Amino acid sequence: MTTPWNHRYALRTEGMTASVIRELLKLTEAPDVISFAGGLPAPEVFPVEEFRRAADTVLREYGPKALQYGATEGFLPLRQHIVKMMRRYGVQAHEDNVMITSGSQQALDLIGMLLLNPGDKILTERPTYLGALQAWRAYQARYITVPIDQDGLMTEYLEEALRSGPKFMYILPNFQNPGGVTLSLERRMELVRMADDYGIPIVEDDPYGQLRYSGEHLPPLVVLDCDHLESRARDGHGYFHGNVIYTSTFSKTLAPGLRLGWIVAPVEVLQRCVQCKQGMDLHTSTLNQMIAYELIKDGFLDQHVKLIRRVYRERRDVMLAAMERCFPEEVTWTRPDGGLFLWAWLPEELDAAELLKEAVARHKVAFVPGSAFYPDGSGHNTMRLNFSNARPEMIEEGIRRLGLLLKERLAALRRQAAVAVPA
Amino acid sequence: MTTPWNHRYALRTEGMTASVIRELLKLTEAPDVISFAGGLPAPEVFPVEEFRRAADTVLREYGPKALQYGATEGFLPLRQHIVKMMRRYGVQAHEDNVMITSGSQQALDLIGMLLLNPGDKILTERPTYLGALQAWRAYQARYITVPIDQDGLMTEYLEEALRSGPKFMYILPNFQNPGGVTLSLERRMELVRMADDYGIPIVEDDPYGQLRYSGEHLPPLVVLDCDHLESRARDGHGYFHGNVIYTSTFSKTLAPGLRLGWIVAPVEVLQRCVQCKQGMDLHTSTLNQMIAYELIKDGFLDQHVKLIRRVYRERRDVMLAAMERCFPEEVTWTRPDGGLFLWAWLPEELDAAELLKEAVARHKVAFVPGSAFYPDGSGHNTMRLNFSNARPEMIEEGIRRLGLLLKERLAALRRQAAVAVPA
Repeated sequence: MTTPWNHRYALRTEGMTASVIRELLKLTEAPDVISFAGGLPAPEVFPVEEFRRAADTVLREYGPKALQYGATEGFLPLRQHIVKMMRRYGVQAHEDNVMITSGSQQALDLIGMLLLNPGDKILTERPTYLGALQAWRAYQARYITVPIDQDGLMTEYLEEALRSGPKFMYILPNFQNPGGVTLSLERRMELVRMADDYGIPIVEDDPYGQLRYSGEHLPPLVVLDCDHLESRARDGHGYFHGNVIYTSTFSKTLAPGLRLGWIVAPVEVLQRCVQCKQGMDLHTSTLNQMIAYELIKDGFLDQHVKLIRRVYRERRDVMLAAMERCFPEEVTWTRPDGGLFLWAWLPEELDAAELLKEAVARHKVAFVPGSAFYPDGSGHNTMRLNFSNARPEMIEEGIRRLGLLLKERLAALRRQAAVAVPA
Repeated sequence: MTTPWNHRYALRTEGMTASVIRELLKLTEAPDVISFAGGLPAPEVFPVEEFRRAADTVLREYGPKALQYGATEGFLPLRQHIVKMMRRYGVQAHEDNVMITSGSQQALDLIGMLLLNPGDKILTERPTYLGALQAWRAYQARYITVPIDQDGLMTEYLEEALRSGPKFMYILPNFQNPGGVTLSLERRMELVRMADDYGIPIVEDDPYGQLRYSGEHLPPLVVLDCDHLESRARDGHGYFHGNVIYTSTFSKTLAPGLRLGWIVAPVEVLQRCVQCKQGMDLHTSTLNQMIAYELIKDGFLDQHVKLIRRVYRERRDVMLAAMERCFPEEVTWTRPDGGLFLWAWLPEELDAAELLKEAVARHKVAFVPGSAFYPDGSGHNTMRLNFSNARPEMIEEGIRRLGLLLKERLAALRRQAAVAVPA
């Protein structure tokens, strides 16, 4: 029908109509489907009782403050606590380098607003985080992509990609979403060196850094950048100052329902972020910031993260073992050292989006077709599997079903090939 | 110093540096200053105890759900409750017409993302809400402004303004921020008629609609638009469909610290809003939405709004009486029927920003210089006064101080004039 709206939408919203994948994913929410599609934490590890006590304390002791407007930068004690947390990972930031965001998704939106003019290019891993592509579509970004292998972004392709002039690099160094891979130390060092050589900053997205289940902790890019820059890593006032904007979140360690993330950036960048955020949502919920602070101020997070690691490590192991057992040998996949996801490559002849339709309808099991994570829509034969949300016995059963389907489809393909090319 | 960031900021962030007014307003936060500058609700009316009980119930009964990711559209029972609330004001919306936002500030950001291309014009009242100007600066909007009088936007200037082709009109019909004026019924009807004639939609921002202290309730533009459009106000599925996007908030009736607002819009517009919001912050805090729903589901809001009205009505009356008593006769001001603000015009010779410096430094009283609310930075001799936040005795004292300062300055001006033009 005619509408007064049709011809009024901004150019940047073109293509914002129901995507095939979005429609498919709605089907995966049916209660009888075992879903590896979402990126949801396990609800059974949420510290509900601790949250209840923290909320009670905050409202009892600081009620009017918790319900009032707050500073755009965020609740100061929480920012100071984040400074302490970051220091343990070697990040020498000051509270003036830290801003609270409404989830780290907002940090991505902010970075787009701050840095992108229409048509600007962003260098990303291939595949990369879907939510970043969604955030930056609004700024009409274009992409230069560099493939990943088990050691993360393949830096041998980096120089050529940097020569085409991206505005910044967007990197998830730890247990990347969607690939599940971790950037090696050598590649991290090469990345910060190249960022400096080419004068092209890095946006480091680190939602899962604390969720490592095997292997050794590796320093974040923001730390390696400061090491590399030496005296240049401090501004005139001694504040943190370099080529990296770092962002992380409490969504995976406390609870996503709070919508609490943060940005660490040079003061000059952060002040502009504050001005952008003011126009976006004024500030992040005071109540939630105060509850989170109340909950973690005495060290609860460390102990809680240990529990999460234990639970997710088991689920990862169960999923990997089940895949080993049930998946056809033509399929390969990553073996993540942490995080929430792993990534699988199917034979070229298979289309993961097609497969998902059948998986949901006939086998009641779901995943995300990998093409969603490719800026150019390629990757038709890849898929992302989440191992944090479903219980171990459900993971076993879901992988069994998926393995069956994959074997069926491959057998059918072989039969077709046999018919098409008779001996 | 040199920085890798300087030359990387997006065009849209130009001018995002510390403004004179922003710096001035920081001074108003000193504890010994009586501030009429903010737009803060009175913290003593926050229903702290009720919030505490609601938070406890939500975390006890639905903890894992409250802490998990939620739908971008918002928590369904809260959306359904908003549909019921809106129906009482005559808005025949369906839950598919309603999306929860992270405060109504986010609704403004969303509308900018959805509708604005760089250079697009927006028709606003003059003066208008500062937060809207901040949100839309990111979309490089330009402005066509129409002055207000005691009956709101002066519709006699509307047609000429519409002819210059704005993308939409941004209107605060009730107790406008900053003017404190209310759009009369006749002008409301003219506005929706003109929107239809010119095919130019209206964004109706209504944060204070429920906070009326005198006079009769007037129907929102979204209702008058549907009346005017008759059968055209429904889409093919019978959903609400017209020329108005309506937005409101729980910030002034429950608590701003929750960051909960909402948009009511045609389904087609709302679906795109959902896609924009997904890239902005995924969704609004599940916990806060569930707490708000728990708090209001059985009618608490009606009774609580009565309390707020009583408290704010008294403060408005105290401020108006004190101004009558203490302000020099050369100053004029609006007499709001509701909301949080009133607006004053000083003699042309006075500069409100200059005055603020002295007011804060010597008299320990603060307000917002009106020029912040003019897209073109004019309005040097105007000021906005908030009457919701300070207690009545503080309002009396603050207005007394401000009156003294105004009289001093006017006397000084007269002395200068006498010297300059000797008889």
